[in-house]
Amino acid sequence: MIARKRDGLPLERKDIARFVRGASDGSVPPEQLAALLMAICIRGMNAEETRWLTGEMLHSGEVWQLAGDRPLAVDKHSTGGVGDTVSLILAPLLASVGVPVAMMAGRGLGHSQGTLDKLDAIPGFRTDWDRDGMLSLLDRCGAAVVAQSERIAPADRTLYALRDVTATVPSLPLIVGSIMSKKLALGAGALVLDVKWGSGAFRKSLPEAVELAVALRDVARNAGMACEALITDMNEPLGPSLGTACEVREALSILEGGGDPRLREVTLALAAEALVLRGQDRADARRRLEEALGAGTAREAWDRLVRAHGGDPAPSLLARPCGEMPVEAARTGWVRAIDAEALGWVAVDLGAGRRRRDDGLAHGAGLVVHRRIGDRVEPGEALATLLVGERPVDAGELSRRVRRAFDIASEPVAPRRLVLGTPEAAGA
Amino acid sequence: MIARKRDGLPLERKDIARFVRGASDGSVPPEQLAALLMAICIRGMNAEETRWLTGEMLHSGEVWQLAGDRPLAVDKHSTGGVGDTVSLILAPLLASVGVPVAMMAGRGLGHSQGTLDKLDAIPGFRTDWDRDGMLSLLDRCGAAVVAQSERIAPADRTLYALRDVTATVPSLPLIVGSIMSKKLALGAGALVLDVKWGSGAFRKSLPEAVELAVALRDVARNAGMACEALITDMNEPLGPSLGTACEVREALSILEGGGDPRLREVTLALAAEALVLRGQDRADARRRLEEALGAGTAREAWDRLVRAHGGDPAPSLLARPCGEMPVEAARTGWVRAIDAEALGWVAVDLGAGRRRRDDGLAHGAGLVVHRRIGDRVEPGEALATLLVGERPVDAGELSRRVRRAFDIASEPVAPRRLVLGTPEAAGA
Repeated sequence: MIARKRDGLPLERKDIARFVRGASDGSVPPEQLAALLMAICIRGMNAEETRWLTGEMLHSGEVWQLAGDRPLAVDKHSTGGVGDTVSLILAPLLASVGVPVAMMAGRGLGHSQGTLDKLDAIPGFRTDWDRDGMLSLLDRCGAAVVAQSERIAPADRTLYALRDVTATVPSLPLIVGSIMSKKLALGAGALVLDVKWGSGAFRKSLPEAVELAVALRDVARNAGMACEALITDMNEPLGPSLGTACEVREALSILEGGGDPRLREVTLALAAEALVLRGQDRADARRRLEEALGAGTAREAWDRLVRAHGGDPAPSLLARPCGEMPVEAARTGWVRAIDAEALGWVAVDLGAGRRRRDDGLAHGAGLVVHRRIGDRVEPGEALATLLVGERPVDAGELSRRVRRAFDIASEPVAPRRLVLGTPEAAGA
Repeated sequence: MIARKRDGLPLERKDIARFVRGASDGSVPPEQLAALLMAICIRGMNAEETRWLTGEMLHSGEVWQLAGDRPLAVDKHSTGGVGDTVSLILAPLLASVGVPVAMMAGRGLGHSQGTLDKLDAIPGFRTDWDRDGMLSLLDRCGAAVVAQSERIAPADRTLYALRDVTATVPSLPLIVGSIMSKKLALGAGALVLDVKWGSGAFRKSLPEAVELAVALRDVARNAGMACEALITDMNEPLGPSLGTACEVREALSILEGGGDPRLREVTLALAAEALVLRGQDRADARRRLEEALGAGTAREAWDRLVRAHGGDPAPSLLARPCGEMPVEAARTGWVRAIDAEALGWVAVDLGAGRRRRDDGLAHGAGLVVHRRIGDRVEPGEALATLLVGERPVDAGELSRRVRRAFDIASEPVAPRRLVLGTPEAAGA
């Protein structure tokens, strides 16, 4: 089987089953798994192999298949980026227009923060729910945002740990298998994908992002899950806030009808796509979502969501930074590029993320970005503000890193196109 | 480092050093070694990387560098095949013309028999010599044929065990590193390579064999070792005997001036190449070698060699088969092809080789091939004879396998060209 993939030949279904079972029960030793992962990484997999891989990974653990009991629930997945506060807004927003949302969220590792960490910033918020717990949450507040269960797709954990140390994380079929096995095991009836492209994303080029979006959607649709993907820009942070409590605050701003226009736009586009998957007219869907933000119903849905999960929604309880330190522009010009990944790492080093899996978080810490691509800046104007938490940090060095992350041009620069639409609209 | 090779980029010397050290001391986990082996297998290595790999593997253990004390000693290596009795003849033959021979031999695993197993068929023959022991053997009989020391290139054992289970054995740079690290650590001043091509060889096509020969020779010469490679045919068994004691007997026939002409020819060509590397004229060298076979001096060198190694050279002490069973041709025709690998496995299943590393051997067992490519056969004539040893075997099934290994044509077939010469002569 390893030799077949080494030579660029497709694997048979039974081979893939043996491989995934071997990862789950230890019947294939790690060095053979690693060799096959590398062969898959270099040689690739066709659509059929990718579906088989996903199916076998999905069946390595519990299959919750929520659609069996709550057929209307939708799931949303982002391929990850910086300042991606969307989930916190999308869940109550969709709940407020009557579409239940069922999501499993992960912790952050590396330069992007995880939704689970952001929810942890809310006092009392519980994320350790099982299937019955999720159904109950859906009934009580129309949304269930829970921690990735260890019982879902356990083969993915073994394989991911191996990929992490064998430089095989970027493999398209392995990414698809990892993401979609968990999505299919949760089994919402519909799935909206936010596939990000750009310097701050996992997929640095647009064609790579489009390729991933098509592959993910193909697996979902073939498994009978309604699915659409939107390609969105991650060449700069999406929302202005990078951290945990500060992202919850940013979500509240948008749920109250204000907030950052870019973050609001991506959230609305994804939410509208969910309503379209549920059979609603697109223009009508968009109008209802904007009304929910403007009229306070989405904000009310947030409070219900937090309470149902055991948390206290009072914004005053969210952790605050110990101090704020603006990082000022050094010259006049227009922002040409922002290194989102570098800013993500600054937020991590302030205490809002993890360099190692067992690092603790400083919920008051984070980074707020004030200038975006295309904006004009003057010396002395703040590009961003460091939110310094309970952790001792070298603020001077972090300021320099923030300043270096901004590329300032002498000529005007056009803002970037934010939502490129479906893979087809984006050039698939 | 793994990511670089995954993407087809060359590795740096320090990366290769870390990889090999990691294999020796366990500082790189097996799954990372396996992933890198697969990436090397698919992406390849350039000549410089291959030399670095070999060098690092060589320095993972003891460096005997025999040339420092016995500058004239030559080594010979074959890439492996069926009926390859050459080493048993070449060592005493070269010793008899005054050229010392220093070789490390391995056990057989799979369809080809190992020189070490053949020497084990000689009562009392010891192969567990250290460096001083080899020097002493060279002084006493002009030849030292010893077991591969565990202290030589230990990184190769770890890597080979991993390659074996990860389908990365066929990788050219990994083969070169494995072979040449051991040859350079032994450190004879000159090396003759017998690189076999064909259905019974490791390299099935002539271009693959030539590629391997050039790569091996390049590493040897770059390390300051005089080296030449000859490409020889392995589309049928080389010598007629496949086994242990029966191959020793075949060697004795040739050392006494008789024996199989093909086996004799390959041995003479390789031995002459060794003398040429030692500065002798080719035609003169060839004449001296033929004289040594004809005049009995090579045969005397054998007895000295066996005694010096602690063995008893009396041919009557060699194990004999319990029974012999000819396999007859079913039709009239000319032998067009012989599946040497299939015949090798028949010898293994008779007890002359190993399917698993801890299998015992039946020294009386083996197979003798009577007809070669181009020979005419008639029904009732023996194609080969099963030498049945102490092990119970299904002789009917083995006979059928032997008969199937012979492809008999209705038209005359030309014999194959046996010694194709240097890589350049063979088309490099």
